[in-house]
Amino acid sequence: MKAYLGRRYHFAASHRLHTDVYDEARNRDVYGKCNNPHGHGHNYTVEVVVAGEVDAKTGMVCDLAELDAFAGKNILQTFDHMNLNTLENFEHRVPTTENLCIEVYNIFKSFRGARLDRVRVEETNNNSFEYAG
Amino acid sequence: MKAYLGRRYHFAASHRLHTDVYDEARNRDVYGKCNNPHGHGHNYTVEVVVAGEVDAKTGMVCDLAELDAFAGKNILQTFDHMNLNTLENFEHRVPTTENLCIEVYNIFKSFRGARLDRVRVEETNNNSFEYAG
Amino acid sequence: MKAYLGRRYHFAASHRLHTDVYDEARNRDVYGKCNNPHGHGHNYTVEVVVAGEVDAKTGMVCDLAELDAFAGKNILQTFDHMNLNTLENFEHRVPTTENLCIEVYNIFKSFRGARLDRVRVEETNNNSFEYAG
Amino acid sequence: MKAYLGRRYHFAASHRLHTDVYDEARNRDVYGKCNNPHGHGHNYTVEVVVAGEVDAKTGMVCDLAELDAFAGKNILQTFDHMNLNTLENFEHRVPTTENLCIEVYNIFKSFRGARLDRVRVEETNNNSFEYAG
Amino acid sequence: MKAYLGRRYHFAASHRLHTDVYDEARNRDVYGKCNNPHGHGHNYTVEVVVAGEVDAKTGMVCDLAELDAFAGKNILQTFDHMNLNTLENFEHRVPTTENLCIEVYNIFKSFRGARLDRVRVEETNNNSFEYAG
Amino acid sequence: MKAYLGRRYHFAASHRLHTDVYDEARNRDVYGKCNNPHGHGHNYTVEVVVAGEVDAKTGMVCDLAELDAFAGKNILQTFDHMNLNTLENFEHRVPTTENLCIEVYNIFKSFRGARLDRVRVEETNNNSFEYAG
Repeated sequence: MKAYLGRRYHFAASHRLHTDVYDEARNRDVYGKCNNPHGHGHNYTVEVVVAGEVDAKTGMVCDLAELDAFAGKNILQTFDHMNLNTLENFEHRVPTTENLCIEVYNIFKSFRGARLDRVRVEETNNNSFEYAG
Repeated sequence: MKAYLGRRYHFAASHRLHTDVYDEARNRDVYGKCNNPHGHGHNYTVEVVVAGEVDAKTGMVCDLAELDAFAGKNILQTFDHMNLNTLENFEHRVPTTENLCIEVYNIFKSFRGARLDRVRVEETNNNSFEYAG
Repeated sequence: MKAYLGRRYHFAASHRLHTDVYDEARNRDVYGKCNNPHGHGHNYTVEVVVAGEVDAKTGMVCDLAELDAFAGKNILQTFDHMNLNTLENFEHRVPTTENLCIEVYNIFKSFRGARLDRVRVEETNNNSFEYAG
Repeated sequence: MKAYLGRRYHFAASHRLHTDVYDEARNRDVYGKCNNPHGHGHNYTVEVVVAGEVDAKTGMVCDLAELDAFAGKNILQTFDHMNLNTLENFEHRVPTTENLCIEVYNIFKSFRGARLDRVRVEETNNNSFEYAG
Repeated sequence: MKAYLGRRYHFAASHRLHTDVYDEARNRDVYGKCNNPHGHGHNYTVEVVVAGEVDAKTGMVCDLAELDAFAGKNILQTFDHMNLNTLENFEHRVPTTENLCIEVYNIFKSFRGARLDRVRVEETNNNSFEYAG
Repeated sequence: MKAYLGRRYHFAASHRLHTDVYDEARNRDVYGKCNNPHGHGHNYTVEVVVAGEVDAKTGMVCDLAELDAFAGKNILQTFDHMNLNTLENFEHRVPTTENLCIEVYNIFKSFRGARLDRVRVEETNNNSFEYAG
């Protein structure tokens, strides 16, 4: 049986794409306008997907109140209205959507209320990234 | 070859989440405001996904008129503008999105025009459930 | 100067359209499937629009935290996850989107933080109602 | 590791569904109003999904500038503001969403910057097709 | 009292922007890729807005079943899955969104069930036109 | 005759809401998490609405290529992928959506191709601001 529950959370954050591994010219070449020195930002949407059996009594895969509490404390408090470049999570990694998605996935892995299937991050209506471990 | 056709249908329905297995206090704890005594409702979106070969003559995986007729008769007439708790489908199950999705999936299984792959139900912009048998 | 701030709130509710003024046959004729005896429901979006000067110091028309607190207490607590027909607000009026919109407008009129311009209620993606007093 | 990047492109095109294999009556039967003699059109959304490792240095799966340049030259210049029936791509195939999706997939297969996973084409909000080779 | 009901209808059509008043070069200059010889198409959304008193008995501004029947017969049957250039409505006018919007407005003027306020046509997510007589 | 053309542009930017007129405590009180020291960001949507006669020859209110060129040069180059706080436009004003909307309005006032009616800025799906001079 393949049963999946998806739930979306929203936050606004800023970032600048830049790596110390490359010089300025190569950074501009690789990241384009995302390398603009003072940063820019996005309204991010995170969709977490958990998989599991539908409980015969409750008709639910997962306690949504628990999932929301976990996401509120571990995702929204960490990323909402923040500058991603200043966070510990991105001290040694560039805060691309890819790395943000992996970071969010790794955080949700410690949620005990259901089995994590995948995480999807939408940076704009046209850009998304999905990670399944 | 993996080829999938998705088609969305929309209906409005009400429900109340409550199980006779638990007492009132536990129902409130498990379902939160979804347990409010007089019920509430949603605009539901159902996406049915069928898989198959693209017919070399018609360029189609499935006759959409047939699929629409099937969905109109079996999904929309059953669920649109209804109170889910009063339906036979939910006589012995709580009308959560999970159980609604499984119910819709089981109905589409008898569609003869294409092989059913999965069904997705969106309850709000932030909540969805997917079932693949 | 015409400056308008719009802010959206979301809630889920159920209702049944039926008036005691008409008999059953005429109710079915006037309200169609919205007259189904056990009710149905929607995800409602309320957009409140306030008008005013942009404060030279803060760059804001209205304190959003105040507006959110007002809406949370007076709109969401009243309507979210409720059956509109059981509310005092609709004791003597049919809970159509029109009457819901007027009711929401009248509630926002007592907000002191900015001048109310209009209220818009979206019942589905295809149906909306707007009221400006 | 399953990591997927999705990117959406938009174009507007017209088409008429009609196959020379069938006579007029059967064409009307199979394609319904999509067989109307003078054609009609849609705003198409194409989502291309590529899979791969996240580069440890750049934090990216794929160079988006390269992907956009490829899509601009090979997808948008070919299909945007065109009548699909007049294109070489559909000289011997009916321009259904299914065939359009396969065609777009086959074009993206020659993109060298990342491994193609699948292509999704949305013809309307309610209709989509996905192809994974 | 300013009370407005909005209702949306959807159709798919093709068109080519070209005027006999100008030569080919000027047509390409004025209409750009919308002048491509074989046409292209869009998913159009029409929102009709009617204004009026909320009926004290029914709680409604307008009988939606009447409005839908009118729109179905006069708007959808006329424009859905059509090539706008081949219609009488555009025999002497270029089928721009502007002219389409005015045409739809003029058709709705003969609706007897409520006072027409304005018509809005969305050609894409980024392009719209509104006409109020 | 009231005829309006709306066109949307999109950009991503970061900002921090903070005014030197207030001390730190009051800034936190007024702007909440929008006052977080390192800033955050949004995907902004700007809709410019112009009003005018529909040209009898072209069927258009305004040359869209001209409007796009103007917006590209004056709006997108100025604001896209920028930190609003570092721009001249906000040297003496807090970069709230309100002030951003007024700034965009004032820029579009110098567009010569049509009469500016209003500008709307959407900061998130739930927040918007509109300014009409």
